[in-house]
Amino acid sequence: MAGITEELCEDHCRDSRRMRSMESTCHMDGDVQRSSLPSQSLQTFDPPTFAFEEWECPPSATRSGGVLFPQWRLPLKVAAGLFSAVFLYTFVRDVLHARLIQSKDKFYTMPVLVMNKALPVTAITLLALVYLPGILAAVIQLHRGTKYGDFPAWLHRWLLGRKQLGLLSFFFATLHAAYSLCYPMRRSYEYKVMNWAYQQVKENKENAWVEDDVWRMEIYVCFGILALAILSLLAISSIPSVRNSLTWKEIHCLQSQMGYCALLLCTAHTLVFAWRKWVEPQHYVWYTPPSFILALLLPLLVLVCKFMLVLPCLNKQLQRIRRGWEARRTQAESVYL
Amino acid sequence: MAGITEELCEDHCRDSRRMRSMESTCHMDGDVQRSSLPSQSLQTFDPPTFAFEEWECPPSATRSGGVLFPQWRLPLKVAAGLFSAVFLYTFVRDVLHARLIQSKDKFYTMPVLVMNKALPVTAITLLALVYLPGILAAVIQLHRGTKYGDFPAWLHRWLLGRKQLGLLSFFFATLHAAYSLCYPMRRSYEYKVMNWAYQQVKENKENAWVEDDVWRMEIYVCFGILALAILSLLAISSIPSVRNSLTWKEIHCLQSQMGYCALLLCTAHTLVFAWRKWVEPQHYVWYTPPSFILALLLPLLVLVCKFMLVLPCLNKQLQRIRRGWEARRTQAESVYL
Amino acid sequence: MAGITEELCEDHCRDSRRMRSMESTCHMDGDVQRSSLPSQSLQTFDPPTFAFEEWECPPSATRSGGVLFPQWRLPLKVAAGLFSAVFLYTFVRDVLHARLIQSKDKFYTMPVLVMNKALPVTAITLLALVYLPGILAAVIQLHRGTKYGDFPAWLHRWLLGRKQLGLLSFFFATLHAAYSLCYPMRRSYEYKVMNWAYQQVKENKENAWVEDDVWRMEIYVCFGILALAILSLLAISSIPSVRNSLTWKEIHCLQSQMGYCALLLCTAHTLVFAWRKWVEPQHYVWYTPPSFILALLLPLLVLVCKFMLVLPCLNKQLQRIRRGWEARRTQAESVYL
Repeated sequence: MAGITEELCEDHCRDSRRMRSMESTCHMDGDVQRSSLPSQSLQTFDPPTFAFEEWECPPSATRSGGVLFPQWRLPLKVAAGLFSAVFLYTFVRDVLHARLIQSKDKFYTMPVLVMNKALPVTAITLLALVYLPGILAAVIQLHRGTKYGDFPAWLHRWLLGRKQLGLLSFFFATLHAAYSLCYPMRRSYEYKVMNWAYQQVKENKENAWVEDDVWRMEIYVCFGILALAILSLLAISSIPSVRNSLTWKEIHCLQSQMGYCALLLCTAHTLVFAWRKWVEPQHYVWYTPPSFILALLLPLLVLVCKFMLVLPCLNKQLQRIRRGWEARRTQAESVYL
Repeated sequence: MAGITEELCEDHCRDSRRMRSMESTCHMDGDVQRSSLPSQSLQTFDPPTFAFEEWECPPSATRSGGVLFPQWRLPLKVAAGLFSAVFLYTFVRDVLHARLIQSKDKFYTMPVLVMNKALPVTAITLLALVYLPGILAAVIQLHRGTKYGDFPAWLHRWLLGRKQLGLLSFFFATLHAAYSLCYPMRRSYEYKVMNWAYQQVKENKENAWVEDDVWRMEIYVCFGILALAILSLLAISSIPSVRNSLTWKEIHCLQSQMGYCALLLCTAHTLVFAWRKWVEPQHYVWYTPPSFILALLLPLLVLVCKFMLVLPCLNKQLQRIRRGWEARRTQAESVYL
Repeated sequence: MAGITEELCEDHCRDSRRMRSMESTCHMDGDVQRSSLPSQSLQTFDPPTFAFEEWECPPSATRSGGVLFPQWRLPLKVAAGLFSAVFLYTFVRDVLHARLIQSKDKFYTMPVLVMNKALPVTAITLLALVYLPGILAAVIQLHRGTKYGDFPAWLHRWLLGRKQLGLLSFFFATLHAAYSLCYPMRRSYEYKVMNWAYQQVKENKENAWVEDDVWRMEIYVCFGILALAILSLLAISSIPSVRNSLTWKEIHCLQSQMGYCALLLCTAHTLVFAWRKWVEPQHYVWYTPPSFILALLLPLLVLVCKFMLVLPCLNKQLQRIRRGWEARRTQAESVYL
C-alpha cells in the first residue's frame, strides 16, 4: 500500500529498483517518510530532464509556492517587449506600407524576413543594455567623487540582471544566425534568383557582379560570425561549472574585454549591413528611420561612453576613486590635519 | 625507478611538475601508493578530455569492469534501430524505386537527402517517446483509481530513459538542421537552380513565383527554428550544473510545458512540410505512405492523449488521485465508517 | 559611509538588498571586513557573467597577480601561429597570384573565402596535434621497453595541453562550418549562379549536371557534419559537470575511440574535398602545394602510426609494458634468480 510514484524522481541510478522495493517494504506505514524529504537532498538526486510529470516532484517541492525564474522575469519582459515593438514596427514599414501604398502583397515575409529584422535589433539592444549600467555606475561614481554610497535601486536591479540580459541577447543572436542561414534554402529566394537570371538573359547582361554589394556582404558575414563566436564563448563561460573553474581575473578578462569586443563587432556588423542605406531616401518609409538606425542607437552610445571613460583624464580619476580615494574626505581630512 | 606514467592524469595544475618530482622522490619504494589511489578522488582530478590514452586511467579505474553508459544503452539501441529502419524505407522508396521503375540514377541522394529524411523522422519519434510514458502512467493511474502501486517494469524502465531519449532527439534534430542548412551549398542544388533558370528562359516565363510553395517554406522554416530553439533550452537545462541551479518547480515548468510546446511545434513543422502531399498520389510510391506520415503517427497520438488528459473531467480526477485519493479506499472507508 | 560597491559581486540572490543594508549597518567602522574576504569563498558566490566591471571583483582577487588562462597560453599561441601562417599562404596563392599574374582583383575573397581555407586547415592540424603526443609516448615506451621513467619535458607539457588543443580545434571547426554555411547567402555566390545560368542559356546547354562534382559535394558535406557532430560530443563531455558524471572508462571510450573516429572522418572529409585536385596542375600555383595537402600531412601521419600501433605485434608488446613488464628488469631478474 506504500506509494512509490513520487519516488521515481529519486531513483535514476542503476540498481534503484532494488533499493526502492526495500524502501517500500520498510515504510509500509504510510507517506510520512517520503513527505518529509529534506529539501537539501534535491541537489543530490537527478531530476529527469526532458519530460517530467508533476507527480515526480518531491511533495515538499511542489507544495511550496515560489516564483519561477525570479532573476529572469524582468529581463524576459524587456526582451519580449523590445521584440514585439520592433516586429510591429517592421511589419508596418515593410508589409503594411507595401500593401497600402504599392498594393503589393508581402505578407509572406512575416515568418522569416520580418522576424529576422526584429531578432537582430533585439539582440544588439539587449547586449548594449548589458554594458550600459556599468557605464552609468562609473558616471555616478565620478560625479559623487567616491565609491562609497549606494547606487539607486533601479541601477542596482539592472546590474543584477546583466547576466540574464546577456544570455537572452545571445539567444536572440543565435536565432538571428539560424534565420539568416535559412535564407537561400527558402523557395522565395530560389524563385527570386531564377527571375533575376531570366531578366539578366533578357537584358543580355553578361556579368551581374556589383563589386560594392559583394564587399558589403562578405564583410557583413565575416563580422557576424566572429561576433557570434565571441558571444558563444561568453555564454559557455556562464555555465556554472565552467565559471567555477575560472579565476575572478579570468572571468573579468572574458566578460569585460571580450564582451566589449563582441559589442564592437556587432555594431560593426550592423554598420556594414547599413552601408549606404543611411542616405538613400527609399529606406525612410513613412518618414520613419530604418530598423538598423534603431539598432545602432544604444550600442553606439555605450561604445562612445566607454571610449570616453578609458581616456586617461577620466580613467585616472576613476581608478583613484575605486582604490578608495574620496573627493570630499580628502578635503575634510585636510581641514582636520 | 618510480613509475610516473599513470600520474599524468592527476597533475593538470600549473606547478604539477615540481610536485610530481617531489612525490617520485618520496615513493621510490614502488608502485604501492599509486595503485591504492582512492576511487573517490577521481572527481577532484581533471581527466584530460580530448584524447586520452588508456595508460592515463588510474589503475583502479581500468581494472574494474563496469558497463559503459548503462542508462544510454537502450535509448541508443532504439534510436539506432529507428534511424536504420527509416533510412532503409526511404532508400527503397526514393532511390530503388527510381532505379527500377523510372530507370533514373538517384544514388547521389543517399549521403544527404535520404539521410535527411531519416534524421527528422527519428528525431520527432524519439521526442514523442519521451512524452508517451508519462501519458501511459496517467492512464494506468486513472484506470487503477489510485497512485499507490508499482508501474509495470517496462514502463518504469521507459520512464527512467526519458532524459536520454530527449537528448538523442535533440542530437538528431540538430543534425537534421545542419543537413538542411547545407542544401543550397551543394552542387546538385546549384545545377538544379541553373537548369530551372534555363527552362524558365526557354519557356519565356517572366515570373517563377508559386505563392503557395513560398508560404509553405517560410512557415516550415520558422517553426523548425523555433522548435530547435526550445529543444536546445531543454538540452542546456540537462547539463548537471545548470540543472542544479534550478528549483524543481522551474525544471518542471521547463521540461513539461516547454517540452510539450516543442513537440507541438515539431508536429506543426512536419504538418506544414507535408502541406498537400497527403492527397497527392505520386507520393504513395509502391502503395507505401510517405515518411512524414510515419513521422506524425506517434506525436499526434501523444498530443491528442495529452489534450484529453487536460480536459477538466479527466484532469480533475487525476489531480485527486495524485493528491492521494483512492477510488477503492474511499469505498472501503465508507463501509467501515 | 560603509562601501558597498564591491559587494555587488556577492549578492545575486533575491533578497540580497535587505541583507546588504543590514551588513552595511553592522560594519560602519570601515572596509576591514570586506577586504579580508577569504579567497575560497569565490566558488560559492555567483560572479555576474556577461559584463562585469573591475570594481566588482573581490579586492583580494584583483590585487593578486596571477597569469590569465595558464593552460591555454601555449595552445592559443600554436593555434594563432598556425592560423596566421595558413591565412598568409592562402592569401599569397589565391589573391596575390591572381593580382600579379592574371591581373584579376580577388581581394573580396579575403573576409570569407581565404578565411575559410585557413580555418579548416588549422582545425584539422590542431586535432592531429591532440593525438600525436599519445603516439609519441607509445613509441618512447616501446623504445625504452618500460613504462617507468619520465617523458621528456616538452612531451609532458604537450600531453597536458591536449584538452585545450582539442577545444580550440572544435572552435575552429565550428567557425569553418558557420563560414561554409554562409556561402550561398553571399551576393558573390548569387551573382556567380546568375552568370552561370546566363552562360548556360547562351551555350544552349539544357543540363548543367556534372555527376562527379555532385557526388564529391554530397559525401563531403555528409562527412563534415558527422565529424563536427562527434567533435561536439567530445566538447560537451569537456564541461566540468558533465565530465564529473562520467566514469573514467566512459571518458576513455569517448575521448580515445570517438576522438580517433572524428579524426578519421575529418581526414576523409578533406580527402573527398581534394578529390582529383592532387593531380591537376592548375592547383599548384607558384609550385606550392594546395592547402588541403598541408592539412592532410599531420592527420595522415597520426592515423598511420595509430594503425601500426594497434597491429597485434606492437600492441601486444605495448600492453605488456603498460602492465608493468620491463625489458631490462626481466633480464636482470633472470640473472639474479
